[in-house]
Amino acid sequence: MVFKAKDIAQLIDGEVVGDENKEISTFSKIEEATAQSLCFFANEKYAPYLEQTQAAIILVSKEFGHSVPKDTTLIRCTSPYEATAKLLEYYQTKMNQSGIEANTQIHDKVKLGNQVYIASFAYVSENVSIGDGCKIFPHVFIGKNVRIGKNVILHSGVKIYEGCVIGDNCILHSGVIIGSDGFGFAPTTDGSFSKIPQVGNVVLEENVEIGANTVIDRATMGSTLIKAGSKLDNLIQIAHNVVIGKNTVIAAQTGISGSTKIGNQVMIGGQVGIVGHIQIGDNSRINAQSGVSKSLESGSAVTGSPAWDYPKMLKAQALIKKLPELFERVMRLERDGK
Amino acid sequence: MVFKAKDIAQLIDGEVVGDENKEISTFSKIEEATAQSLCFFANEKYAPYLEQTQAAIILVSKEFGHSVPKDTTLIRCTSPYEATAKLLEYYQTKMNQSGIEANTQIHDKVKLGNQVYIASFAYVSENVSIGDGCKIFPHVFIGKNVRIGKNVILHSGVKIYEGCVIGDNCILHSGVIIGSDGFGFAPTTDGSFSKIPQVGNVVLEENVEIGANTVIDRATMGSTLIKAGSKLDNLIQIAHNVVIGKNTVIAAQTGISGSTKIGNQVMIGGQVGIVGHIQIGDNSRINAQSGVSKSLESGSAVTGSPAWDYPKMLKAQALIKKLPELFERVMRLERDGK
Amino acid sequence: MVFKAKDIAQLIDGEVVGDENKEISTFSKIEEATAQSLCFFANEKYAPYLEQTQAAIILVSKEFGHSVPKDTTLIRCTSPYEATAKLLEYYQTKMNQSGIEANTQIHDKVKLGNQVYIASFAYVSENVSIGDGCKIFPHVFIGKNVRIGKNVILHSGVKIYEGCVIGDNCILHSGVIIGSDGFGFAPTTDGSFSKIPQVGNVVLEENVEIGANTVIDRATMGSTLIKAGSKLDNLIQIAHNVVIGKNTVIAAQTGISGSTKIGNQVMIGGQVGIVGHIQIGDNSRINAQSGVSKSLESGSAVTGSPAWDYPKMLKAQALIKKLPELFERVMRLERDGK
Repeated sequence: MVFKAKDIAQLIDGEVVGDENKEISTFSKIEEATAQSLCFFANEKYAPYLEQTQAAIILVSKEFGHSVPKDTTLIRCTSPYEATAKLLEYYQTKMNQSGIEANTQIHDKVKLGNQVYIASFAYVSENVSIGDGCKIFPHVFIGKNVRIGKNVILHSGVKIYEGCVIGDNCILHSGVIIGSDGFGFAPTTDGSFSKIPQVGNVVLEENVEIGANTVIDRATMGSTLIKAGSKLDNLIQIAHNVVIGKNTVIAAQTGISGSTKIGNQVMIGGQVGIVGHIQIGDNSRINAQSGVSKSLESGSAVTGSPAWDYPKMLKAQALIKKLPELFERVMRLERDGK
Repeated sequence: MVFKAKDIAQLIDGEVVGDENKEISTFSKIEEATAQSLCFFANEKYAPYLEQTQAAIILVSKEFGHSVPKDTTLIRCTSPYEATAKLLEYYQTKMNQSGIEANTQIHDKVKLGNQVYIASFAYVSENVSIGDGCKIFPHVFIGKNVRIGKNVILHSGVKIYEGCVIGDNCILHSGVIIGSDGFGFAPTTDGSFSKIPQVGNVVLEENVEIGANTVIDRATMGSTLIKAGSKLDNLIQIAHNVVIGKNTVIAAQTGISGSTKIGNQVMIGGQVGIVGHIQIGDNSRINAQSGVSKSLESGSAVTGSPAWDYPKMLKAQALIKKLPELFERVMRLERDGK
Repeated sequence: MVFKAKDIAQLIDGEVVGDENKEISTFSKIEEATAQSLCFFANEKYAPYLEQTQAAIILVSKEFGHSVPKDTTLIRCTSPYEATAKLLEYYQTKMNQSGIEANTQIHDKVKLGNQVYIASFAYVSENVSIGDGCKIFPHVFIGKNVRIGKNVILHSGVKIYEGCVIGDNCILHSGVIIGSDGFGFAPTTDGSFSKIPQVGNVVLEENVEIGANTVIDRATMGSTLIKAGSKLDNLIQIAHNVVIGKNTVIAAQTGISGSTKIGNQVMIGGQVGIVGHIQIGDNSRINAQSGVSKSLESGSAVTGSPAWDYPKMLKAQALIKKLPELFERVMRLERDGK
């Protein structure tokens, strides 16, 4: 497939600067571009690559002011990043699977929408409903009474325990576990633990994406809830009765303990730990590897373990490196009085 | 289903205070209770909800002294938490699967107990034995020579490598991997690594529960061992030749390195890292995100990375925040002698 | 099976000290050895076990100078560790599966090498190629256009998304996910996020081993690349467009963020976090639980979060414990001038 600059510009509402008939056949990173490549430029860090790039076409912002090789065609647009996403989505080979393959296990009492794809070795239990346009890949397990909205993609190996609810347009990557038992045990007098039955479920609202091997435990009672538009990366742990607000983004390997409530539009870095039973206010930002042990007001920015105000903690952490020097200075003061 | 206060009291050995014919049809959290709800009260944090709760019945301790709405019926018992667990277990819909479904792969030389459930797409290898009452969900893989006790539940997607042993009443959640190779490589002179064959196995004693996507590696030689009654949360890493004592509880995303021995009744928080070849004494407590690099005596309580005595480390960590101020004070002393 | 000292010595190019006809039938750890055991001694920490060991034969270094019981036979060799690996590999029961089992799903347009094993419930998509001697265990999913080299082992439950490439002799443990979408979203003006299509792939070069439940995301464009001989432990997160050099070793639960480049022969401890878009030089060592936020030169050794020079950071961390004392000393100076 070959595309012309003018067609691309039309699709993304951009303006061609250079040869409007310039053609590309592939997408590349700026530093790896060939004469057939379309690139985008959205990060000043990559400016050094501009001067000698071989890219045929570069998507740039309206304010772009760097110089580029004479033959390079630019397309100016509002957001090169968003424009690239739109383009890639447009041109990407559509996943064209459809229909029910051989060798599936689908209970008689399952309600299937139109244009559903169910692959071999998928297991769909009693009283499950699956909306129009869903794609269920091999080795997916769907427990009893699960409800799945429209256009949901369950990649190979997703497991959904009984009674959970998956909203429209959700994407669950391979190895995601939804609705496993919360970690609840009552200590008994002989030192052993008796299991607290976990009778709640998990609810994902629409447009949620969950990364590979992430686990979301069912609520003890009620629901563990991920609200619309939130995006979770890989290998994340969401404990029982957690609530995550809208459009919140969580990076890989973060863990959120039981009953904690995260607000809307929160950004959480990788490997963060958040204790149970606290609230994280809207629009908060939590830096990677932080350990959050207290509730945070809306708009907080924290780092460290235990986590604290971002700029203050950065300053304090920098001073840790100077402790050996400080101890010497204090010793000198004690000895010399000066 | 509807239950009366007096029936519940009998089941949990409690005492009704109020209307013994009061009925409930659901279990709720105190802050979400409706007029059909049974709740329990075990944490003073939730006391503010008591005054205006709509709950029909509340399970409370014998010492409970808060005031509640006039119509609320109380049931006094020794431990509301344990009582709730007992009730939920009693009333929870039993998983009623049994028998061997179509489309399984079970080797001729497999020894099956009575009343075993094996779901479609489960794979059971040569010389495996499975005890009475086990439930094997879809997409479970059981390698050669694995021995599984009675009443074990293997949720969908559990994988057990060859030669491992699973004790009675164990519960393994989806995505659990038992017996993958330990991470052992010998450096060679050309800078590459040659694999050390891992010829041991994993042994889980009885009443062990393992959370979703947790991995327990087989021993290089001998056994990686989890003793009776221990409970592991999700996404935990247990390396080769680790030994974990009885009734030890480990929260999510913790990692324990090779050959380390953990005692009995130890409590380990989430995202803890423990180095290899050390001993953690009985009844120790390790706070979330700690990094433990040295052996701990019985009854230790530690936090931080590197981990140190809990109260002392809390105090030291609090002072990190005051480092900018301290540096200024020392500078002033140096300048002014005061 | 029984083996004699002289045969073992020949196999590993060692020298027998003692009875060359001494026989063993099992491999054991030095502290658990019986009169039928072969052990190896490579760590001085275990010296106390030597005096009273019952081991029949011990593999030791050429420089070994401890005393052992009179009847113990020693075999001196260059590297007891490597020698043991070699022996174990030689004698370990070979996995002898071969052929295509019943109940697989293999697309017509798949290219299979010789002596390939494909287990029941494996799913192999269109245009996949699988080299000679590969072993594909149950519940493996291989997406469209995946290319797999020779003698690759895919343990039960491995999932490989479309278009990825797996080199010769790679071993992927259960639950490994290769090629899931990178975590890329463009913020939109209404606060929601639109998915950036991830059209790249993952390439594993030859002799790579990946631990259970580890996830390697596909590149946005281009390839996420793991070079020859690198070994990754369990539950690791490798984000989109990461490049990992040759013979690099990464311990469990570490996470590497997008587009970061790791050099050759790097050693990374467990639970390390590395931010995106940085470079880690060859031969660097990163201690467990470190948080690396800046590029590292070749040969660096760092620890801490944020990570810093290893010996300096150890010293500074030790002083954190003395902060309460330091604050008191400064207060005294301020009060007493001395």
